[in-house]
Amino acid sequence: MIDSVSNKEVVFLSKLRETKNIKENKMFIVETPHLVEEAYKAGLLLKVITNDESLNIYNVPTILMSNRCLEKISTLKSTPNIMGLVSLKENKEIRGNKIVILDNVQDPGNVGTIIRSALAFNVDTVVLSNDSVNYFNEKLVRSTEGNIFKINVVTMDTLEAIRKIKEMNIDVYYADMYGKEEVSEVKTTSYALVMGSEGKGISEKVKEECTKSIRIDMNSSCESLNVAVASSIIMHSLRS
Amino acid sequence: MIDSVSNKEVVFLSKLRETKNIKENKMFIVETPHLVEEAYKAGLLLKVITNDESLNIYNVPTILMSNRCLEKISTLKSTPNIMGLVSLKENKEIRGNKIVILDNVQDPGNVGTIIRSALAFNVDTVVLSNDSVNYFNEKLVRSTEGNIFKINVVTMDTLEAIRKIKEMNIDVYYADMYGKEEVSEVKTTSYALVMGSEGKGISEKVKEECTKSIRIDMNSSCESLNVAVASSIIMHSLRS
Repeated sequence: MIDSVSNKEVVFLSKLRETKNIKENKMFIVETPHLVEEAYKAGLLLKVITNDESLNIYNVPTILMSNRCLEKISTLKSTPNIMGLVSLKENKEIRGNKIVILDNVQDPGNVGTIIRSALAFNVDTVVLSNDSVNYFNEKLVRSTEGNIFKINVVTMDTLEAIRKIKEMNIDVYYADMYGKEEVSEVKTTSYALVMGSEGKGISEKVKEECTKSIRIDMNSSCESLNVAVASSIIMHSLRS
Repeated sequence: MIDSVSNKEVVFLSKLRETKNIKENKMFIVETPHLVEEAYKAGLLLKVITNDESLNIYNVPTILMSNRCLEKISTLKSTPNIMGLVSLKENKEIRGNKIVILDNVQDPGNVGTIIRSALAFNVDTVVLSNDSVNYFNEKLVRSTEGNIFKINVVTMDTLEAIRKIKEMNIDVYYADMYGKEEVSEVKTTSYALVMGSEGKGISEKVKEECTKSIRIDMNSSCESLNVAVASSIIMHSLRS
């Protein structure tokens, strides 16, 4: 069992919490048993990091280390006794006929929640624009409740994604409080939906490339909805 | 201008970030100009705390202090140059015919998001159970985007709230993945909706007191939705 926090492997793993190193090594770490299990089910679990070998019920190697080493690697307030080393699978292809594009959405909790809802409402692909939060962000992964491993998440430039989707003959909606079509009136089984950040909204350039626009009517005393809520209401309405 | 962090008023205000002191003094602090403005519009702004008197465009007294004093009071990473001292108005009465009850929901971001959606979808009263997060929690207030001041929020025991609502002849639904009625099929303009915590769900005791139950159908590979998302989908569906 590794007990030194200056051990080469411990140092490597603790540095693997930074974006640059994650991208370079094409691996990231997930914490808690549930996320380890979901990564395993998706065929992405490389190794189990734990202080108790019997917790590794998966057919992958164990990295056995003491609590203080786990603490050095963990970013959670209370260090879990099992973490997973997971392969960073970079999806490149937009698939299916229900697609959500997140254009410059930064909040990892919101993006994670959107990915969780996307799976619930039969969305095939979630596109994260290059300037959105990274899909391996630890808070994002936690907010998806492990659903990140069950859905096709692609990182791509927003305009490039819209162009590709239009070639697939799928209507591209952007969501906006002044959108032309009210969500309950839209009846389509195939769509792409562009959501912008709460602060900045969607740029004119992106809006111009979209073919349609959609809105959620609400009480005039409320200025806007949370972006995960708005996305989920639209995905729910168009789920069939 | 106050410049000493041991000044009596600065010490008092910095202690006013703790639940016990907020309840005792019936006052709390909000940060950022937007929240100060919303508190003012609601008639709840007592004083403006700032390092620049000209920022107080409201008809209330100013507490003028230096940046380091503001820093001592602020709980944000970047200290704003305006904060508001706000009256803690404790609402006691359940009003209207669209009511949401949050039963032991702890996450302040989720509760704030639910309150924001509640305003958007014409909910009259949000009941927080005694074991839910306090409605003056700073993260909750921020997540509502100031909408906390525009809606009737009541803190009350869940079972007591359900009893009162039933006396008003309003159906009380609880949300659950095995709920009897699917949300799109429910057509009612008056309802109460009980939402439980994501982890524990709703207790059997509470379920028994409800008159109906509601569910959101979703893809079988997804186990559950975020509680703010689920609440918002139901409120949106029953908004008219």
